[in-house]
Amino acid sequence: MKQQFQILEIKIDGIEHIMDKFKPLKEEVYLANLEIPKQGLAIYTWGNVSAFDKNLGVFAIKPSGVAYNELTIEDIVVMDLEGNKVEGKLNPSSDTPTHLELYKHFDGINGITHTHSPYATAWAQAMKSIPLLGTTHADHLANPILCTQPLSKEEVENGYEKNTGILIYKAFENPSIANEILNVGPYPSTPLNPCENPMVLVGGHGPFTWGSNSMKSVYNARVLEEVAKMAMWVKDINPKFSQLPSHITKKHYDRKHGKNAYYGQN
Amino acid sequence: MKQQFQILEIKIDGIEHIMDKFKPLKEEVYLANLEIPKQGLAIYTWGNVSAFDKNLGVFAIKPSGVAYNELTIEDIVVMDLEGNKVEGKLNPSSDTPTHLELYKHFDGINGITHTHSPYATAWAQAMKSIPLLGTTHADHLANPILCTQPLSKEEVENGYEKNTGILIYKAFENPSIANEILNVGPYPSTPLNPCENPMVLVGGHGPFTWGSNSMKSVYNARVLEEVAKMAMWVKDINPKFSQLPSHITKKHYDRKHGKNAYYGQN
Amino acid sequence: MKQQFQILEIKIDGIEHIMDKFKPLKEEVYLANLEIPKQGLAIYTWGNVSAFDKNLGVFAIKPSGVAYNELTIEDIVVMDLEGNKVEGKLNPSSDTPTHLELYKHFDGINGITHTHSPYATAWAQAMKSIPLLGTTHADHLANPILCTQPLSKEEVENGYEKNTGILIYKAFENPSIANEILNVGPYPSTPLNPCENPMVLVGGHGPFTWGSNSMKSVYNARVLEEVAKMAMWVKDINPKFSQLPSHITKKHYDRKHGKNAYYGQN
Amino acid sequence: MKQQFQILEIKIDGIEHIMDKFKPLKEEVYLANLEIPKQGLAIYTWGNVSAFDKNLGVFAIKPSGVAYNELTIEDIVVMDLEGNKVEGKLNPSSDTPTHLELYKHFDGINGITHTHSPYATAWAQAMKSIPLLGTTHADHLANPILCTQPLSKEEVENGYEKNTGILIYKAFENPSIANEILNVGPYPSTPLNPCENPMVLVGGHGPFTWGSNSMKSVYNARVLEEVAKMAMWVKDINPKFSQLPSHITKKHYDRKHGKNAYYGQN
Repeated sequence: MKQQFQILEIKIDGIEHIMDKFKPLKEEVYLANLEIPKQGLAIYTWGNVSAFDKNLGVFAIKPSGVAYNELTIEDIVVMDLEGNKVEGKLNPSSDTPTHLELYKHFDGINGITHTHSPYATAWAQAMKSIPLLGTTHADHLANPILCTQPLSKEEVENGYEKNTGILIYKAFENPSIANEILNVGPYPSTPLNPCENPMVLVGGHGPFTWGSNSMKSVYNARVLEEVAKMAMWVKDINPKFSQLPSHITKKHYDRKHGKNAYYGQN
Repeated sequence: MKQQFQILEIKIDGIEHIMDKFKPLKEEVYLANLEIPKQGLAIYTWGNVSAFDKNLGVFAIKPSGVAYNELTIEDIVVMDLEGNKVEGKLNPSSDTPTHLELYKHFDGINGITHTHSPYATAWAQAMKSIPLLGTTHADHLANPILCTQPLSKEEVENGYEKNTGILIYKAFENPSIANEILNVGPYPSTPLNPCENPMVLVGGHGPFTWGSNSMKSVYNARVLEEVAKMAMWVKDINPKFSQLPSHITKKHYDRKHGKNAYYGQN
Repeated sequence: MKQQFQILEIKIDGIEHIMDKFKPLKEEVYLANLEIPKQGLAIYTWGNVSAFDKNLGVFAIKPSGVAYNELTIEDIVVMDLEGNKVEGKLNPSSDTPTHLELYKHFDGINGITHTHSPYATAWAQAMKSIPLLGTTHADHLANPILCTQPLSKEEVENGYEKNTGILIYKAFENPSIANEILNVGPYPSTPLNPCENPMVLVGGHGPFTWGSNSMKSVYNARVLEEVAKMAMWVKDINPKFSQLPSHITKKHYDRKHGKNAYYGQN
Repeated sequence: MKQQFQILEIKIDGIEHIMDKFKPLKEEVYLANLEIPKQGLAIYTWGNVSAFDKNLGVFAIKPSGVAYNELTIEDIVVMDLEGNKVEGKLNPSSDTPTHLELYKHFDGINGITHTHSPYATAWAQAMKSIPLLGTTHADHLANPILCTQPLSKEEVENGYEKNTGILIYKAFENPSIANEILNVGPYPSTPLNPCENPMVLVGGHGPFTWGSNSMKSVYNARVLEEVAKMAMWVKDINPKFSQLPSHITKKHYDRKHGKNAYYGQN
């Protein structure tokens, strides 16, 4: 996917300059948020995208409860990694603390998408990781899509959204803690690399996906929805089927993402 | 959602004035009815929305059997709470007595939507309440979505549509009477607050939803359809899964609707 | 639904006059065929509509294998009830002999639609009648939607399409012959009235629907698809559920179609 | 379907002439690739179509990883049957060696389509051939739709895409080798004619379809998706149903494709 934004004019006047340095990030995340309804990933305001700029130390995120067709670039809120609002008049997405935790702990991630897309959400509500059943899945990640356990009562009552972020990165550090809710055999006890596994299901809630920029995190949200749909149908057609042989899944992942990848034009 | 209607010119001439006082209500409900096909909630004429004005003591409702793309503001029918037509040349929706009963008994409700949206209708036809399986549901109501029992032979033959309204508010007054058809454990014997539980399934028939205005009742109809769809898929993926822990569902409901709600811009 | 066609100019010159008398029927059926892709009832050329004029003793039908977006009024073929082509350069639909048999035996039917709409076709392929599970179904017919047995080898080899028509009207004359393939209890041995039961599933093949004009037959094809979809989902949600009490289904049918019908504006 | 391309100007200047002789083939396959998103057969870049010209000894194919809405005729890559690039600046689809094997071994095939359309892919991932359940299927092929076994570790590691092509034509030469994964009874040990059976599921991966030109191969991809969808739903409605009697399926195939075919206008 090409970058769909351009750097707009940067004025050299002092105050304006400070404001303008966030404009590319805000425009990037504005376009990525518009991609959510285009890809059918959420109805009404049920999804949000953020974009992180490591050099500036900030991320831009959708404001809370604003409809996509009413959203403007000016509405986008800019936050630093301490949770302070750096720019913007509106309240940021109520899921902002989740995004923040992930940017702090997942190195190389510059975009995050959260939706309630129905197939992925159904798997999350069913408390099931999505088994690796075919090459469409393997083209994008070489492991099942992890479903976390739900948060405890205390985690919910004290910092719910922040704890959702912690829940996710801890599940990636030690995937085997989620084994009791998995139906795809013991999960490896070695950590999952978030750059190579750009999606998760939060048990009882729904999907979070990420990528090297915000538009790629929306792409991964669409991939997850398609994979979740197919996996449900595979179960319907052949309830006994469990997992594709790993020599095929590894090949598909590597031909797109491995050292000698040969998919695409680069 | 912003109010999508404006008060049109109010002429000061006597008779015109009387007519015009219903115009905002008629335009509101006209736009809310157009939202039904836009949201994919009904084909042909299979749905209707009404809007209630407590001060005027009337509600405006879609005429019976008129296609959405042929509907005009002038076609909207205005009814009082005794069931008399106050304004309009056409017959009101055949479901008008159901709307009337709900406005009389559900305080704070100013809009009602009835559709045959397929997922919600499938649950209603299956005679099953929709269990509370995830946060998408909990964002909107903190209980399962109640399915009523079907009407008796006598209730059907003598005032079918009025008795449908009575069936609904009596089920909200004493939800445990529906327990025999529920699959989600004993329903509380304490009444359900209709303002906090803005939707119901009429057993064998389909959904009714409501809200503080007519557009919000259509919003709730769309929410119900999405929740009904996901719940069917959760059953498909994990037939053993029954209900999300209440500490999570309560949190999601409260962060949007509780005393200290922090979702959105207000 | 309003009539969507008008009588075009009728020239008084002899030969022209003879040709023109079919024009309203051809235009009616042209518009009804265009409704098939609009309603999502068939892809490519997988559906056809005909319209019958009892006074003229002819029916107009879609030509075989012509895509809807390439169809013109001039392409429509006019047939008499002996199976002779009365007007038109193209071959009529290969299903023409089925339409012909139905017009000959079903009095009051002036339009027929055949599609391969996926939910209705799935029921037909599953060799199951659609049980009467809710009021959406009962709003349109007061019985299960009959699925016929498949044709025998001899019936297939000698006049396949004609025998499909015979299969349908014989199944309506004596529905109990289909009992062995029904899952909804014994079918009545009394004949089904085709005017009150405007649809059928041909076992292994797909749906045929009809009505008082061709556009109404397409409407009934859309109704059947919606009812078939919901019925499959009801089975998914509650496999034990079998049939709505008849006092409700009868009421819904009668309020739209009975002697004292009060739905709509007439 | 009509041919949707025309021969553009052929310049008589030497070098230009050599370039231009591929233009019709490139324009044909360009239009056929655009049909993939139009028919909803793939999201993003998840599908590719090629077109073969037997006289020129080359096939034209989509470049790898290029989005359909950014694709131009100039982007199309021309390959010979030894796997050499004859024209084009971009890398051809990573699935090119699969297309090449099929053109070499399937006589009369001049177009191939590969997608990840979700219903067909779900059957492929479930490792199940699609049983012949109805006339919609039989209108297009008179056998179940074969699902191959997955490739072995060695086949994957040494020439994965070429071996996928070999897997397919060997499965057609001896369909009974796939019997262990079929749920539709023993597959015939006689070879399947690829012209009469224009589609296959590669186990764990997804569908490949073909035809006498590239647009027909996309048509067959759409047919397969519709048939796969209906077959899944038939299983859902009636798990016991296995196969339509062969006297009906043969009739439907023959009336469209047999010696005395009478469907359509020829």
